[in-house]
Amino acid sequence: MKSLKPTILVTNDDGISAPGIRALIDEMRTIGDVTVLAPDKPQSGTGHSITLEDPLRLNELKTDGTYKEYSCTGTPVDCVKMAVNVVLHRKPDLLVSGINHGSNSSINVIYSGTMSAALEGALEGIPSIGFSLVNNKPDADFSAARKYAARFAKLALKKGMPKGCCLNINIPNLKEKQIKGVKVCRQANANWKEEFDIRTDPFGSKYYWLTGVFKNYDKGNDTDEWALANGYVSIVPVQYDVTAHHAITEINDWNYER
Amino acid sequence: MKSLKPTILVTNDDGISAPGIRALIDEMRTIGDVTVLAPDKPQSGTGHSITLEDPLRLNELKTDGTYKEYSCTGTPVDCVKMAVNVVLHRKPDLLVSGINHGSNSSINVIYSGTMSAALEGALEGIPSIGFSLVNNKPDADFSAARKYAARFAKLALKKGMPKGCCLNINIPNLKEKQIKGVKVCRQANANWKEEFDIRTDPFGSKYYWLTGVFKNYDKGNDTDEWALANGYVSIVPVQYDVTAHHAITEINDWNYER
Repeated sequence: MKSLKPTILVTNDDGISAPGIRALIDEMRTIGDVTVLAPDKPQSGTGHSITLEDPLRLNELKTDGTYKEYSCTGTPVDCVKMAVNVVLHRKPDLLVSGINHGSNSSINVIYSGTMSAALEGALEGIPSIGFSLVNNKPDADFSAARKYAARFAKLALKKGMPKGCCLNINIPNLKEKQIKGVKVCRQANANWKEEFDIRTDPFGSKYYWLTGVFKNYDKGNDTDEWALANGYVSIVPVQYDVTAHHAITEINDWNYER
Repeated sequence: MKSLKPTILVTNDDGISAPGIRALIDEMRTIGDVTVLAPDKPQSGTGHSITLEDPLRLNELKTDGTYKEYSCTGTPVDCVKMAVNVVLHRKPDLLVSGINHGSNSSINVIYSGTMSAALEGALEGIPSIGFSLVNNKPDADFSAARKYAARFAKLALKKGMPKGCCLNINIPNLKEKQIKGVKVCRQANANWKEEFDIRTDPFGSKYYWLTGVFKNYDKGNDTDEWALANGYVSIVPVQYDVTAHHAITEINDWNYER
């Protein structure tokens, strides 16, 4: 007999063993028939990377009734493509990614594997949401974040998703009672000021760790950074059409034809 | 004596040895003081990936007067961050990425390492352009593409770049005389229909190659796909603010506060 529950695909970028995805899986199993396909190792900061130079491996880890769990050797975006085409052979009713260990607010959205998986879902026409908790410590408390994940998963299943986008939902690092509410926001104008940590290996050669300091240049109170700093859950609708429409006229004025 | 020429940073995603970057370097050396920092191996499809799980290595390959050439073990975005912070210790006057072997039109922009390097430049406030030739064969003829690269590099140095964006310039696979002109476009609504090529290794285990067929759903004549199919060079201004502003009202109507 065909299940009447919605099919939910779960992925992330911290890897199949991360506490954040385990919390998300538990919540989604109360809502629908869940298939998990997540990277077999951490893939933070892999952005919209896909694997072209190497083949991919798929590992079947668990089957329990309608619940199925797989890992693969690829990136979060590879996971979405494999899940739809190799495992499910159809589009799920909902794709959820995360719960990420650490913020994906503002410019982090473009580096984030978690959000790139959600964006890949969006461009395949799947209602998709990425969830992130603003705490990247190993003992992070996902109890408030998982409740918001369940609430917005249900809402997305009911309402669908605006055309051409997915949602980037960040949950502040607060107890559930301390969270003031939810704000739908724009991406703050912020970025990272890089600082390379330069070291010397035991054989006398230099190597470089990429580190940095986050800088928010945006004074607006309609941004995700503002919402999170003020105790709100932030929701930014994120699109894959990256055309800077405002700049088309300006470039046309360049008189570029010789 | 300080050089009066502009400082130009050159990178790509096909790796330091690719014919496309060698053509771009040659052209840029006629315009400014060039520093090259490109991946030491092919990094196609790495999107906005950065390297967080491993340290990076930097290899100094050549110095010839003001010309400097390096490779690194990271992604195209890592290359930009290293070039600015470790090699130049300042922002270059121009960043050029490419010339990519193959199209980066429409949705390819979000998977492209070439374009992610240019976008990383943009978010650091550097005038930045990614160039791609719509031909990924080893014997591709870059002679028309390199002329357009030189022309638009000079224009960007003279005019600057519209706020918050970089340029995605694709050159059709035609002789220079056959190219009809240049069109400033929006990103076409297109994507890839995945097809996994499933094989069995000599030890009996399955592995999967990610392949696919490109599908253009967009009938508009103001898109990059239209321009390229009709013999024009396409220019799409690309932004790093990925907020779907049109969707904010729709999500606010979800009545998400319990």
